[in-house]
Amino acid sequence: MGKKNKQFVEKITAMEEDFAQWYTDVVKQAELVDYGSVRGTMIIKPYGHAIWENIRNELDRKIKETGHSNVSFPLFIPESLLQKEKDHVEGFAPEVAWVTHGGDEELAERLAVRPTSEVLFCEYYSKNIHSYRDLPMLYNQWANVVRWEKTTRPFLRSLEFYWQEGHTAHATDEDAAEETRKMLDVYTDVVENYLAIPVLRGRKTEKEKFAGAKYTLTIESLMHDGKALQSGTSHHLGTSFAENFDITYLDENGKSQYVHQTSWGVTTRLIGALIMVHGDNRGLVIPPRIAPIQAMIVPIAQHKEGVLDKAYALRDRLTEIVRVDIDDSDKMPGWKFNEYEMKGIPVRIEMGPKDIEKEQVVLVRRDTLEKEFVSLSELETRLPKLLEEIQQNLYDKALAHQKEMTSVATNMEEFKETLENKGGFIKAMWCGDIACEEKIKEETTATSRCIPFEQEKVADTCVCCGKEAKELVYWAKAY
Amino acid sequence: MGKKNKQFVEKITAMEEDFAQWYTDVVKQAELVDYGSVRGTMIIKPYGHAIWENIRNELDRKIKETGHSNVSFPLFIPESLLQKEKDHVEGFAPEVAWVTHGGDEELAERLAVRPTSEVLFCEYYSKNIHSYRDLPMLYNQWANVVRWEKTTRPFLRSLEFYWQEGHTAHATDEDAAEETRKMLDVYTDVVENYLAIPVLRGRKTEKEKFAGAKYTLTIESLMHDGKALQSGTSHHLGTSFAENFDITYLDENGKSQYVHQTSWGVTTRLIGALIMVHGDNRGLVIPPRIAPIQAMIVPIAQHKEGVLDKAYALRDRLTEIVRVDIDDSDKMPGWKFNEYEMKGIPVRIEMGPKDIEKEQVVLVRRDTLEKEFVSLSELETRLPKLLEEIQQNLYDKALAHQKEMTSVATNMEEFKETLENKGGFIKAMWCGDIACEEKIKEETTATSRCIPFEQEKVADTCVCCGKEAKELVYWAKAY
Repeated sequence: MGKKNKQFVEKITAMEEDFAQWYTDVVKQAELVDYGSVRGTMIIKPYGHAIWENIRNELDRKIKETGHSNVSFPLFIPESLLQKEKDHVEGFAPEVAWVTHGGDEELAERLAVRPTSEVLFCEYYSKNIHSYRDLPMLYNQWANVVRWEKTTRPFLRSLEFYWQEGHTAHATDEDAAEETRKMLDVYTDVVENYLAIPVLRGRKTEKEKFAGAKYTLTIESLMHDGKALQSGTSHHLGTSFAENFDITYLDENGKSQYVHQTSWGVTTRLIGALIMVHGDNRGLVIPPRIAPIQAMIVPIAQHKEGVLDKAYALRDRLTEIVRVDIDDSDKMPGWKFNEYEMKGIPVRIEMGPKDIEKEQVVLVRRDTLEKEFVSLSELETRLPKLLEEIQQNLYDKALAHQKEMTSVATNMEEFKETLENKGGFIKAMWCGDIACEEKIKEETTATSRCIPFEQEKVADTCVCCGKEAKELVYWAKAY
Repeated sequence: MGKKNKQFVEKITAMEEDFAQWYTDVVKQAELVDYGSVRGTMIIKPYGHAIWENIRNELDRKIKETGHSNVSFPLFIPESLLQKEKDHVEGFAPEVAWVTHGGDEELAERLAVRPTSEVLFCEYYSKNIHSYRDLPMLYNQWANVVRWEKTTRPFLRSLEFYWQEGHTAHATDEDAAEETRKMLDVYTDVVENYLAIPVLRGRKTEKEKFAGAKYTLTIESLMHDGKALQSGTSHHLGTSFAENFDITYLDENGKSQYVHQTSWGVTTRLIGALIMVHGDNRGLVIPPRIAPIQAMIVPIAQHKEGVLDKAYALRDRLTEIVRVDIDDSDKMPGWKFNEYEMKGIPVRIEMGPKDIEKEQVVLVRRDTLEKEFVSLSELETRLPKLLEEIQQNLYDKALAHQKEMTSVATNMEEFKETLENKGGFIKAMWCGDIACEEKIKEETTATSRCIPFEQEKVADTCVCCGKEAKELVYWAKAY
């Protein structure tokens, strides 16, 4: 009976009607997560976890290829350690979960459950870096972190989430700057080429940068509802942590110098981006390169002699070239179609008695729902090609949407009108004054997303105060 | 200057002199871990982490092959939830780290940092299992857990450690029993065939079983100093959690039934086992199948023309077949030999001008330190074979040691004498009374390690009380 209920994929809310509810419905119906018993925590279910593992494996490979080593640092941070860098602790303290007791014993000092691990790495570096020969030190860890958020949503903002955090130390400011940019490039590569999500690249304003950083680089992506999502950040920490933690090295002339540090991270948020960029009213759409199952075989009239045998043989054949599965359950094919569309599996392969007779299969791509008949003999050639076409199409569609949803505003009236009627990114000039940035946020709820690497001059004056403009900024309402 | 210090691998304490100090020296000198700032926590450094990743990847593959799916459950457990299973909470409460504050807010209910996650999975199962068609539910997670231990040692007993924990639900007691045994077999496979550590297999006594379980199966291994280490456990949880958490399903006749559960885990402790089983007075010895680097090329007289070129060419050739690296730093070859012996790299490949002339290399195996000359043309054949020989030899040596260190005792005098003079496993008959088990522990500090699957009758009477014996038990002092 439980199974019978499962055959029925409940109708989800249309995204045009209520985007937030659509998101929640998809997350639940596609079996990505469930809610944990502590408010704001999530249980990542098998399908959601398989997607995360694919993202993680790809990124982990690139992190290693760029010379970084994985490590595991502790979960707990003594309160006094967290307080060593002033800006940093001010940024994070309001969100910290505190451990005060171990067993029956009250602790002499409270322990923070890590919201991020800069201070732990700094303490380690201060003990383990002595000479210029020890540099660069290039570490990364995959870990869970906790931030005591007030309002939460699965993947987007949760009390506990999963991420990788890179922490590096370098001899010079230039080396750290190069590293900061290199890791932003790695993130761009994974997000654009594997998640098929185009990104805007640039620098955060002083107001939006990481607490304690010299500057923060960011990749920003645009969701279907016209809101932005920060998808990865890379911080040049300068020497401020090094000064507070006394992380020095002897240079080639025997002179003591502070190290220059970076940190960078992406999180399970990326799964939220995936849902909100590619999903539609039938559910998820997963880009083939990170799809746990790239093709699902659905036998038609499977009770008829020979159909299942042929379908199994097909699966065995295709296992060599794609991640393939078969649904041989006794559900009706229509139910199966719904279920795998909800789960966003890139290609459905239908095979029934008629197809067997004609030595063909039907391929149905998830992104456009287009059907094509392919002869069995050509499948090994056609299927991988189709998967690449889907991958490319998802990226192209998302890029077209991002471009369409990017507008220019030269004064506040235009800014507000565009934001209200259309949403998306607004390109507007800024004088560089934090007062204008705060005023824009207050009046429109839009925040500065980034100062793009590719600067243009769309006006001479600041969109807010009308004084001389310093640089172009992308603004948007954001998750 | 830092580098100069690093060239020197400090002498480690001899294991015959002070085994505990030897262990600490190796862990530190081989750069496996560093101590965290919170007492009893550890930082797993790149080399230690690479070993853990190799163990983890192998085990993860086998866990998936046996039909399990990875998930991620939250870190925090509400106190009321932890208390639902009486035996379980009694077993774990004394070791729990408690979160009492989130940001500035005092929490209405304390949250346990998970010491293990049975209750979280139970709560999930109670909501998500409805029918016999939902069973079995086969979940696994890789996670960090925290136990507030009084005395700690890296890998062996730490405040925070890393593990996988499997949690499954089944329709029948038999299915759960089969799963419990199957996962013990998976652990046995990984520990014996990859870590090259022979294990004893059996059941824990009532006293030593997992808090809340029907019974616990265990694999036990013997360290070089004659102490035992529990290396993996698999628990049949019966229906006691199901009863407390109301986890029921409708069977094929529409009747409500409790599910039968299992849980099973192995931890970063395995690295401790690795060190203490294979290590020697030169440091670590890593079995080839899980060694991050299987062969290290050390060029001899590398300043001479052509040596480094040939060494790089050799590395490029070997990359295809083994995990190989080269040390082209300006340290003396002798220092390099010491360093890679300390790190337990299975094979050292020496190549100097004379070798190049003779078109050969020197292979030095870490386990026996034996040298052999191999012609370059035969290297692709010889090197993988040598690695397998080393793998086998490590296992054989450990098995011989385990056998040699296993004794029979038929009375307490014999028991104490053997334990004192020789250590190791003591095979002795037991009446089944917990009073005898406690008395043995009190008088000797040895604990029951397991009731082996392969029973023998080494005497008629209990080694402790002299009454009729029920079964054979392996006893040992243990970590």
